[in-house]
Amino acid sequence: MRETQFAVIGLGRFGSSVAQELVQLGHEVLGIDRNESVVNDMSELLTHVVAADASDEDMLRSIGIRNFHCVVVAIGDDIQASILTALLLIELGVEKVVAKALSPLHGKVLQKIGVNRVIYPERDMGVRVANQLVSPNLLDYIELSEQYTIAELSATRRISGRTLKDLDTRARHGCSIVAINKKQDVIIAPTAEDVVEEGDVMVVIGTNPQINEFEEAITP
Amino acid sequence: MRETQFAVIGLGRFGSSVAQELVQLGHEVLGIDRNESVVNDMSELLTHVVAADASDEDMLRSIGIRNFHCVVVAIGDDIQASILTALLLIELGVEKVVAKALSPLHGKVLQKIGVNRVIYPERDMGVRVANQLVSPNLLDYIELSEQYTIAELSATRRISGRTLKDLDTRARHGCSIVAINKKQDVIIAPTAEDVVEEGDVMVVIGTNPQINEFEEAITP
Amino acid sequence: MRETQFAVIGLGRFGSSVAQELVQLGHEVLGIDRNESVVNDMSELLTHVVAADASDEDMLRSIGIRNFHCVVVAIGDDIQASILTALLLIELGVEKVVAKALSPLHGKVLQKIGVNRVIYPERDMGVRVANQLVSPNLLDYIELSEQYTIAELSATRRISGRTLKDLDTRARHGCSIVAINKKQDVIIAPTAEDVVEEGDVMVVIGTNPQINEFEEAITP
Amino acid sequence: MRETQFAVIGLGRFGSSVAQELVQLGHEVLGIDRNESVVNDMSELLTHVVAADASDEDMLRSIGIRNFHCVVVAIGDDIQASILTALLLIELGVEKVVAKALSPLHGKVLQKIGVNRVIYPERDMGVRVANQLVSPNLLDYIELSEQYTIAELSATRRISGRTLKDLDTRARHGCSIVAINKKQDVIIAPTAEDVVEEGDVMVVIGTNPQINEFEEAITP
Amino acid sequence: MRETQFAVIGLGRFGSSVAQELVQLGHEVLGIDRNESVVNDMSELLTHVVAADASDEDMLRSIGIRNFHCVVVAIGDDIQASILTALLLIELGVEKVVAKALSPLHGKVLQKIGVNRVIYPERDMGVRVANQLVSPNLLDYIELSEQYTIAELSATRRISGRTLKDLDTRARHGCSIVAINKKQDVIIAPTAEDVVEEGDVMVVIGTNPQINEFEEAITP
Amino acid sequence: MRETQFAVIGLGRFGSSVAQELVQLGHEVLGIDRNESVVNDMSELLTHVVAADASDEDMLRSIGIRNFHCVVVAIGDDIQASILTALLLIELGVEKVVAKALSPLHGKVLQKIGVNRVIYPERDMGVRVANQLVSPNLLDYIELSEQYTIAELSATRRISGRTLKDLDTRARHGCSIVAINKKQDVIIAPTAEDVVEEGDVMVVIGTNPQINEFEEAITP
Amino acid sequence: MRETQFAVIGLGRFGSSVAQELVQLGHEVLGIDRNESVVNDMSELLTHVVAADASDEDMLRSIGIRNFHCVVVAIGDDIQASILTALLLIELGVEKVVAKALSPLHGKVLQKIGVNRVIYPERDMGVRVANQLVSPNLLDYIELSEQYTIAELSATRRISGRTLKDLDTRARHGCSIVAINKKQDVIIAPTAEDVVEEGDVMVVIGTNPQINEFEEAITP
Amino acid sequence: MRETQFAVIGLGRFGSSVAQELVQLGHEVLGIDRNESVVNDMSELLTHVVAADASDEDMLRSIGIRNFHCVVVAIGDDIQASILTALLLIELGVEKVVAKALSPLHGKVLQKIGVNRVIYPERDMGVRVANQLVSPNLLDYIELSEQYTIAELSATRRISGRTLKDLDTRARHGCSIVAINKKQDVIIAPTAEDVVEEGDVMVVIGTNPQINEFEEAITP
Repeated sequence: MRETQFAVIGLGRFGSSVAQELVQLGHEVLGIDRNESVVNDMSELLTHVVAADASDEDMLRSIGIRNFHCVVVAIGDDIQASILTALLLIELGVEKVVAKALSPLHGKVLQKIGVNRVIYPERDMGVRVANQLVSPNLLDYIELSEQYTIAELSATRRISGRTLKDLDTRARHGCSIVAINKKQDVIIAPTAEDVVEEGDVMVVIGTNPQINEFEEAITP
Repeated sequence: MRETQFAVIGLGRFGSSVAQELVQLGHEVLGIDRNESVVNDMSELLTHVVAADASDEDMLRSIGIRNFHCVVVAIGDDIQASILTALLLIELGVEKVVAKALSPLHGKVLQKIGVNRVIYPERDMGVRVANQLVSPNLLDYIELSEQYTIAELSATRRISGRTLKDLDTRARHGCSIVAINKKQDVIIAPTAEDVVEEGDVMVVIGTNPQINEFEEAITP
Repeated sequence: MRETQFAVIGLGRFGSSVAQELVQLGHEVLGIDRNESVVNDMSELLTHVVAADASDEDMLRSIGIRNFHCVVVAIGDDIQASILTALLLIELGVEKVVAKALSPLHGKVLQKIGVNRVIYPERDMGVRVANQLVSPNLLDYIELSEQYTIAELSATRRISGRTLKDLDTRARHGCSIVAINKKQDVIIAPTAEDVVEEGDVMVVIGTNPQINEFEEAITP
Repeated sequence: MRETQFAVIGLGRFGSSVAQELVQLGHEVLGIDRNESVVNDMSELLTHVVAADASDEDMLRSIGIRNFHCVVVAIGDDIQASILTALLLIELGVEKVVAKALSPLHGKVLQKIGVNRVIYPERDMGVRVANQLVSPNLLDYIELSEQYTIAELSATRRISGRTLKDLDTRARHGCSIVAINKKQDVIIAPTAEDVVEEGDVMVVIGTNPQINEFEEAITP
Repeated sequence: MRETQFAVIGLGRFGSSVAQELVQLGHEVLGIDRNESVVNDMSELLTHVVAADASDEDMLRSIGIRNFHCVVVAIGDDIQASILTALLLIELGVEKVVAKALSPLHGKVLQKIGVNRVIYPERDMGVRVANQLVSPNLLDYIELSEQYTIAELSATRRISGRTLKDLDTRARHGCSIVAINKKQDVIIAPTAEDVVEEGDVMVVIGTNPQINEFEEAITP
Repeated sequence: MRETQFAVIGLGRFGSSVAQELVQLGHEVLGIDRNESVVNDMSELLTHVVAADASDEDMLRSIGIRNFHCVVVAIGDDIQASILTALLLIELGVEKVVAKALSPLHGKVLQKIGVNRVIYPERDMGVRVANQLVSPNLLDYIELSEQYTIAELSATRRISGRTLKDLDTRARHGCSIVAINKKQDVIIAPTAEDVVEEGDVMVVIGTNPQINEFEEAITP
Repeated sequence: MRETQFAVIGLGRFGSSVAQELVQLGHEVLGIDRNESVVNDMSELLTHVVAADASDEDMLRSIGIRNFHCVVVAIGDDIQASILTALLLIELGVEKVVAKALSPLHGKVLQKIGVNRVIYPERDMGVRVANQLVSPNLLDYIELSEQYTIAELSATRRISGRTLKDLDTRARHGCSIVAINKKQDVIIAPTAEDVVEEGDVMVVIGTNPQINEFEEAITP
Repeated sequence: MRETQFAVIGLGRFGSSVAQELVQLGHEVLGIDRNESVVNDMSELLTHVVAADASDEDMLRSIGIRNFHCVVVAIGDDIQASILTALLLIELGVEKVVAKALSPLHGKVLQKIGVNRVIYPERDMGVRVANQLVSPNLLDYIELSEQYTIAELSATRRISGRTLKDLDTRARHGCSIVAINKKQDVIIAPTAEDVVEEGDVMVVIGTNPQINEFEEAITP
C-alpha cells in the first residue's frame, strides 16, 4: 500500500466520509474542522485530528501542511472559507488540492486559483439517484464516455432461465453483457450458453439508448 | 418512455440535481420547496414548481400528491421536517417514497416509518471520492458484490503499446479486461491481440485486491 | 413496593412532574436534561440527575440505560430530538419507552418506531378542563368506556337533605350514585336512605348524557 | 344545553384542546392568538377566531370581551403576557377568568390579582402519568379526597373467573368494587356472585394503600 | 441617623441612582443585579453588591433578604422579573417593598400583589420637565395638593428692584412669596419691604393658574 | 397661554410623558418615533405624530423642524442617534434643543455640540426617591440652593394638636414652617397660634440637616 | 471628455465616493447595491441606480453589464460576494474589472481570477495618514519610485523670508524645491531668488531620508 | 527621528495600517482593540498592544493615555464608541486627537467636541481611485491648491523619444514637467533637451484642465 498522506479540511457528512474511507483504505489521514465537538467525535476514527480554523496560515504552517501529498477541502457551506483555504494551501506548496464546490461559479473560482480537482458531490449523487429512479432494474452505472455506459441491471422474472443466446442483446438492442453476477460466483465474459436467472446482476456495456431499450424490454 | 410522475421535495443542491436529471431523462417533475426564491430559480427548469411547506397536509392533498408514483424527500438539514413529511406522504398513499438521510439514526427512523429507499448522498460520494484519490488511475467504479468490482482504469505510459496478451491480467492479477474505450471507439470483449495505448480507458472486473494490484502495477 | 427503575429524559414542567411524582411513589428516578441549571434545580428532588444530550448514544450506554425498566421521553419542544432519542432507547434495548407527543403526526412517528405508549399531556388536560368548565358541579371524571363515565359531582343546595330514594337517579336520569364523600367519611355503595347534603361529593356512574342531565337538574 | 359563551386566549396545544372540546360539548367559543397562522388553522374548528394581541385593551373592548361568561387564559410561555392579560380581563369585568400557570410563583400572582381558577396542566398530567406507570393495571383514577381514590383497574389473568365473593376485596384489602366494565355492558353495584374476567375493568374505591395493595395482589 | 437597611434590585440608571443617593444619605445599601460587569462597576460605590438573579428564591434567602427594612425593585425592562421578584420579597416577609412600574397595568399588578409603593420615574420626570419647558422662569415645583403648588421662579429683569409691596402678588395674582433665595442668603417669610433682584429665586405658593399668571406677568 | 410649538423625538416612557403633559398644558406637540406602532398609540393623544427616523435630515426639513421653538430629544437607548439627531436640529436652526442623556459622558457630548439643556431623568428621579425612602414623612422637596431645601412633611400623631409656637421649629431645629396644607384649605404664612393636626402637610424651609432633625423629631 | 461608461457595485462609503467623483468628472455611472435604502439615497447623485444582488447573473445580463467599459466591485465586507461577482463580470466579458480587497489573501484570489486592478483603500489611506502624522509639516505626498517621493511641505516660521538660495536644499539635504504655492499664485520651477514665507506650500522632490531631514530642519 | 509616542484605537484595516506604518517609520505605537484575537494578531507587529474597551475611562487612565502625544481613533463602525472615546481622550488631556469619521455628520460632532483632525479614509480613497480610473495614464496626484495639482503621468508610446522642447507642454497645455522618473534615475528640473521614453513617469504641475488636456493628448 502506498503511503500517501492525506488531510481533510471540513468534517461534515461529505468530508468525514472521505476521511473515514481513506483510513479504511489503509492511509494516514489528518482531519481538520473548526468545530471542536465534531473533531472529538472523529478523534478515534482518524489518524490525527485538529480543531482549528483552516484559513489561519500560521496554523497550517505549524502542522506542516506542505508535507501532505493531497489535501481535500470539504468545507460545508462557507464559500469564502473554501476559496481562501484552497488558495492558502496552494500558496504553501501543497502538491494536490481537491475541493468541493457548492455551485458552478464557486467551482470556476476554485479552478482559476489552481485547485487540481473540483468535486460536486450533491449534484453528482443527484444525477446518479435520478437515473436509478427512472429505471427500477438499474442498480448502478458508470459513464465510460459521452456515449457509452456500463450498467448493472438486475435480471427480472421475465428473462429468468434464458441463455444469452436467447436474449441476443447485441442483435436486438445493440448492447453487450460482459459479466453476470450470480449468487455463488461472477461469470466474466459469459458464453452464449450461460443462463440468466431472476436476481442475477448483468453487467451491460452499450450506449444509453441501447441500455434503456434493453432495460425496458425486461421490465414485466 | 414510461410516464411515471415524480415530485421532489426540497430543492437544495441534491434535490435540484435529482429533479433536473429526471426532467432531462424525459419525465415530468414537480418541485416543492419552502423558499420562494429557490422555487423561482427552478421554475423554468422543472415541469411544475410550488413554494410551500411540505409538512402541511392540506397543501399536499390539494396538489394531489397521492397520484405521484414516486416522491423524493430531499430536505436539506431539517431532520424533523424530513421525517414528518415522509410519514405524511406514506399516510396519504404515495406509492414510492425515497428520502435522503443525514445520519444513520435518521435513516433508521425513515425506514421504520415505511420509506421505500433511504439515500445518503454525501456519505456515498465521500466513499467514491476517497477511492479515486488513492488510485490516481481509477476513474470510476461500481461494486458488483461485496467482493467484485467493475473499475475504469486509465492506461498509463508504462503499458502503452502492450497487447492484452502481454498484460495477461487474468494470470498475473486475477482480474479481467472486459472493454477498452479508445478515443475513436469502444472495444467490447477485446481479444488477446487488442493493443492498449496511453490514455485508453480499460474496463476491468475483479476483486478489490486484484484491481488494486493491477492498478499499482501500471503506475509508473 | 416494586423496585422498577425509571429514567425521565427532559425535565420541563411535564417531565419534572412525572419524575417527582415517581419519587414520591417510592421509586428511584434518574433525570436527564441538556440544561445544566435545570438539572441542578432537580438534583435534590430526584435520586440521580445527569446533564447531558440524550441523543448521544455513548452517553446513554455509559449510564447503562438498557437496565432501566421504563424510560419516559418528556422532551419539550424538539420533535427531532424526541424521535431520535426514542429510537436510540429502543435500539439499546430499553424494555418500556413512553414518550410525549406534540402533535398527532409526531405521535404516529413515535408509534411506528416502536414506542410503547404515546402521551399527549396538554391535549388530554385541555379536554379535562373543558369538561369541568361547562359543568360547574363536575369536579373530575374518568371515562370508563366510550359510553360510560364515572364522575364526581358536588351536591348543590337544591338537593341538600334529600335521600337517594328521593333523588332516584336510576329512574329519572339513568345513572347511579355508587359512593358519597361526606366530610367525615366516604359511604361506599350507599343505601336508599342515605342523605345527601350540600358540599358532599357524589360518585356517579352512567353515560355522558345521563350524567349531564343529572348535573343540570341539580344546578339551581 | 346552557349557552355560556367562552373565549380562549392562546391557542397552543393546551388552549386549542380546551377550545375544541368546548365546541364539541356544544358551546360557542372565540379563539384569540397573536400568531396569524395558528388562528387560520383553527378558524374552521372554532366558532370565531381573532388574530390579536390579547394584552391590547382596545382590542378586548372592541370584541366585547366583558360579555363572555368565562375566559380561559392559556398563553403558552410568556408569563408577563399571561399576568397582564388576566388583569385586563378582570378590570374589564369578565365574570370568570381561568388561567394556566407555568410555575407556583406565577400561579400565586394570578391568584392575587383575582383569577378565579389557576390550572397547571403539565404538572397535573405528569402526576397522573406517573401513577399509571408504577401500576401497570391502573388505567385511570380520580382523587375523591385526600384519602380516598376511585381507580380503574384492568382485571389480570390471575383473577380471571373469580367472583367478587372470591376476591373479597373489602375484607382482604379494604377497598370496594363498585362497578365492572365488561365488554358487552357495565355492571353497576355488582353482587357477590358477579364474575370478573381477564380484560374487564373494575372500578374500585378505597384509600391509596388499599388500592395499591389490591393492584399488586392481582399482578401475576 | 437611623440605621434602616436597604437593598436595591436592578442597578440600571434609576436603580443605581437610588442606591448611590441612599449611601450618600448615610445608609447601608446592598445592590443586586444579574449583570456582573454592572455589579463590578458599583462595587466601590455601594456597601455590598451581589451579582445574582433576584427571582431565585434560594439566593434571596441565603443573603437574608427578610432582614432588610426596605427593598427597591428597580428592574429595568423585564416586567415578568419585576412582578415575580416583588412577590417573592413579599412572601419572604420583607417589610417594605417599593417597585418601579413600566406601565399603568404593570403598576396595578404590583399593587394587587402587595407592593407598598409603586413608582413611575420616567412618567413623573416627563411631567416635571414639560412644566419647566412651558414656563422658562419656573425652576422647580412640588404639588402641595390637587390645587396648590409651591414653585421656584427666577426673578426676571422686569421686576428687578421691586419690593414685595410693589409686586403685591397676593392682590394681583392670588399667590404668595414665602421665601426669596438671594445669592448671599435665603430670606424666609420676607416682609413687604424686601426687594427682589434679577437672578433671585422666589418661592411662591398658590394655585396653578395663579402661579402661571404671575410667571407670565414677569416674563419680558 | 403662549403658543410655543414643541416637538418631541422618541416616544418612550419619558418622551411620551413629556409630550402628553405639554398637550395637557395647552400646547401643540408633534411626536416623532421610528416605531410605527408606538406612533399609532400616541396619535390621538398628541397634536401630530410622524413615524420616521429623526436622524434623516430630509425628513426633518420636510416637516419644517426649524419652525419649532423647542425640540425635545428623548431618544431611548441609542446614544449615537441621540447625538446625531441633536446636532442635526442645531444645524437646521432649531432655537432650543433639550436632550435626555444616558450617562455623564453622553451629557458632555450633548453640551459640547450645543444642546441648550441636558436632562438625566432616571438619575434625578432616583435621587428624589432615595430621599423620600429615608424620611418616611418627607412627601416631596425641592432644592432651593446647595444649602436650602423646601420640604413637604406630613404631620405625625406625635405633634398632632400642637401650635407652631409649641413646635418652635426656628429655635429648636433652625427651619421655618411657611405653609400648612390642611384638608379644607392651605394656610400660607401661618401664625404662631395655628395648630397642626395629624395628616396635615407642613411646608418647611431650611438646610438639609435642620429639616432632617425636625423630621426625625416628629417621627414616633 | 471621453465617454467611458462606469458601473460601481456596492455603494458603501468607498463605492459611493468613487461613483460620485466619477459623476463629478463628467462620466455616466450606474450604481448597484443590494440595499434599497442605500440605492434610494444615491438615486439623485448618480446617473442610474439599481437595487439588486450583483451576484445574480440574469440581472447583470439584463442590464447589459458587458457594455460597460469599467466596473468597480466595491462590495463592503462580503468576500464571497466580491469574488463571485468579479468572476461573473469577467465571464460576461466586461473589459476592465477593478475590485476592492479586504485582505492580501482576498486580493490574491481577485488577481488569480483575472481582476485587472485590486485596490486596498483602508490600507493605503492608513499609510498616507501615518506619514502625515509623523511629519507635521508634510501636507501630502506621492511616491515617485521606491526611492523618490514628491512631498508638499508647509513653510514654517523658521524659514520665513528666506530665499531658495539661503535654504540651498540641494546641497544641504539633497532634495529640490520644484514649485512654491503662494497664496496669490503658484511659482513653478522657482529661481534661487524666490522667497519662501510662512504658510507657503513647497513642492519638494527627493528620497525619503532627504525630505525627512529637510522637514525636521524647518520644524521649530 | 523624533520620539513622539502614538496610540491607535481600533485595529481594523485602516487602524492597523496606520499603526504598522508608524512602526515602520520608527515610532513606538500602542494598539488598542476590543477584540482579543485582533490584538493577538497585531502583537508582534506593534510596540505594545492592549485588548480593552477604549471607552472605559479607568483603563485609559491606567495605561497613562495622557502621556501619548497623538492618539488616532480608528474605530470601525461604531459611531457612538468613536465619539465617546474621542471625548474621553480630550477630557483626559491628550494633546492631539485624530479620528476617522464615517459620515459628514459624524465628522461634525467630532470637530465640535474638539478633535484636532478628522479623517474620511474611504471617501478620500474613493475620490483618488475615481481620478485614476478616468485617466489611465494618471498614476497618482496631489492637490496643491483648489486650482493646482501635481500629477504623475506615465509616458505613452505616442510621445516616446520626444524632447521636452518637442512636447512644449507650457505653451500647448499650460502645465509644466518638473521631474522625469526614468528607470535608472530621476531627473529633477529637466531641461528642454531631456528626452521622454515610453514607461517614464513625468511629474507635471498645472491646473486640472491643463493636466487633463495633456493626459488626453498623449493617449493613443
